[in-house]
Amino acid sequence: MMNKRIGKQTVTLEHPPVILGTGTVAGKKEGEGPIGKYFDVIADDNVLGAKTWEKAESGFASRAGREAFKKCGIEKEKIDYIFGGDLLNQCTGTSYGIREFGIPFIGLYGACSTMALGLSVAASYIDGGYADYCAAITSSHFCSAEKQFRFPLEYGGQRPPSAQWTVTGSACAVLGKRGEGPVIDCITNGKIVDKGITDANNMGAAMAPAAADTLLTHFQDTGRTPDDYDLIVTGDLGAIGKSVVIDFLKEDGFDLSKNYNDCGLIIFDGETQDTHSGGSGCACAGLTFCGYIYSLLKKGQLNKVLLVATGALQSALVVQQGESMPGIAHAVSIQNC
Amino acid sequence: MMNKRIGKQTVTLEHPPVILGTGTVAGKKEGEGPIGKYFDVIADDNVLGAKTWEKAESGFASRAGREAFKKCGIEKEKIDYIFGGDLLNQCTGTSYGIREFGIPFIGLYGACSTMALGLSVAASYIDGGYADYCAAITSSHFCSAEKQFRFPLEYGGQRPPSAQWTVTGSACAVLGKRGEGPVIDCITNGKIVDKGITDANNMGAAMAPAAADTLLTHFQDTGRTPDDYDLIVTGDLGAIGKSVVIDFLKEDGFDLSKNYNDCGLIIFDGETQDTHSGGSGCACAGLTFCGYIYSLLKKGQLNKVLLVATGALQSALVVQQGESMPGIAHAVSIQNC
Repeated sequence: MMNKRIGKQTVTLEHPPVILGTGTVAGKKEGEGPIGKYFDVIADDNVLGAKTWEKAESGFASRAGREAFKKCGIEKEKIDYIFGGDLLNQCTGTSYGIREFGIPFIGLYGACSTMALGLSVAASYIDGGYADYCAAITSSHFCSAEKQFRFPLEYGGQRPPSAQWTVTGSACAVLGKRGEGPVIDCITNGKIVDKGITDANNMGAAMAPAAADTLLTHFQDTGRTPDDYDLIVTGDLGAIGKSVVIDFLKEDGFDLSKNYNDCGLIIFDGETQDTHSGGSGCACAGLTFCGYIYSLLKKGQLNKVLLVATGALQSALVVQQGESMPGIAHAVSIQNC
Repeated sequence: MMNKRIGKQTVTLEHPPVILGTGTVAGKKEGEGPIGKYFDVIADDNVLGAKTWEKAESGFASRAGREAFKKCGIEKEKIDYIFGGDLLNQCTGTSYGIREFGIPFIGLYGACSTMALGLSVAASYIDGGYADYCAAITSSHFCSAEKQFRFPLEYGGQRPPSAQWTVTGSACAVLGKRGEGPVIDCITNGKIVDKGITDANNMGAAMAPAAADTLLTHFQDTGRTPDDYDLIVTGDLGAIGKSVVIDFLKEDGFDLSKNYNDCGLIIFDGETQDTHSGGSGCACAGLTFCGYIYSLLKKGQLNKVLLVATGALQSALVVQQGESMPGIAHAVSIQNC
């Protein structure tokens, strides 16, 4: 058996799985943002006709899956595993969204890092010979997330400048052993990094050290540098977290100033959309990657991308108990062959 | 690349990973039960000195991990990935428990199926060449679970006979590419099955159809029968769920009456421990497998075991919104070579 590990925590895929297609369903605000035209469906009512925000989120996930299967021309019966999760308690956004599919389900919890986590595990399962086709799915919803993590919307709490705006939407990617599309050639799964941040309105700062840790490890393990990528994109650190990552990597001798951005700054126009430090939520990296970045990869406008989705692993309850917020970041290298 | 799939949703592992050792930390009631002597640590105060039930659960997880690493004689720095999750919102039992380890973390959500889910993914990563050593961990706590899913304990709500008792504890297994111990040779990951049960005090009935579905698929995919195992053990269906599984499989022509039991009926003595339909929670299958069953495998008193841990994927909130409880079950075949 070939050992696919390089360095401390990176694996290279011997038979790089192909991202065959994606499905993206976005909320109204996301549809009005700078990359709105890249989404398959924009739900003008933000709920797709559902009666609760939680049911709405599951509805988004269900629709994103169906869009992805349809666009790839792959029947759901051919998909060997679906990997996914979300921010809702017990990951119900995903599980209720996908239960109609009847696909073997490996539930993941990576908070807002779930899109990269799902891509990483799906790619490993295909490369390892366990699957011909896999799907990776995630979702988030502004209303269900605010209610669960911060305050009920009806309370009308003021948001500080460091706050981020949870993205409403769902994204699904379908991966295959072979076919047309960019491939996943290399993965660096992250470890938990906790620098003691306790402010639930400053998630970017909580997650940035984890992103910096995974990025540094990825460069050290692979011998690659930022210049080896057309675009390095973190999950949802927003403006504050992005600047922290640039500073941290600079100290370690890596210059991210040229080709690095954050999904939270791509998906919304902070100037006109009142999103403060930027977008967040599982669907932030989900929609930005599966909608915008995947489209640029397919067109050849990008050829080498490092997606480093980030998650903060706290619950509202443990933060109330005085705990800090641990972060994690998973990196997936995606290339056109 | 060899295709390792057989049948609809089963994979055989070319290089079956070895379960090198386990760590088990149990609550007082679990320690007093029929398999109490198989646990490494019994926490007489149920909290290991922590100030909240949630911190206690993380403390159990942390201790179970350390016990497992120590007993295997493997330093945590050598472990390539840790796979785990639990029932708490955002899986904080696991993430706060393991954050001190600094091991790349792939968070899972499978509710009470997490032990089998973790073993399945860990084994796939080793067999696939991505890791030399992996750990799989899970936890649950009676007090944190009752508070989150049903009623605050102080309310003193009456429990109907169909109710189960969430197991307090944590279990961790360490897997390796080679070494001494039973191996994982075959995995059947389950799909979501929802038969419309809405009673949070009848979890066994909600999960039993998923267990039956995974068992039937496993037998059909592999050509094996119940007689090929010394023990078939479901996760935490309890008495009601167990009888449902036996009935369902009988209809499909498989006789489970001889060598089938449920972890929820093994871990507690229902007659004397007032646990109604049996044990439940992630630690139910976790402690029963990593403590009792693993010990019998090591001694050769069991040689072929099929562990089918089961999970119910609802949250308290979506059940309040009228949703039914979807179940899932993951099967892992463990054999002495």
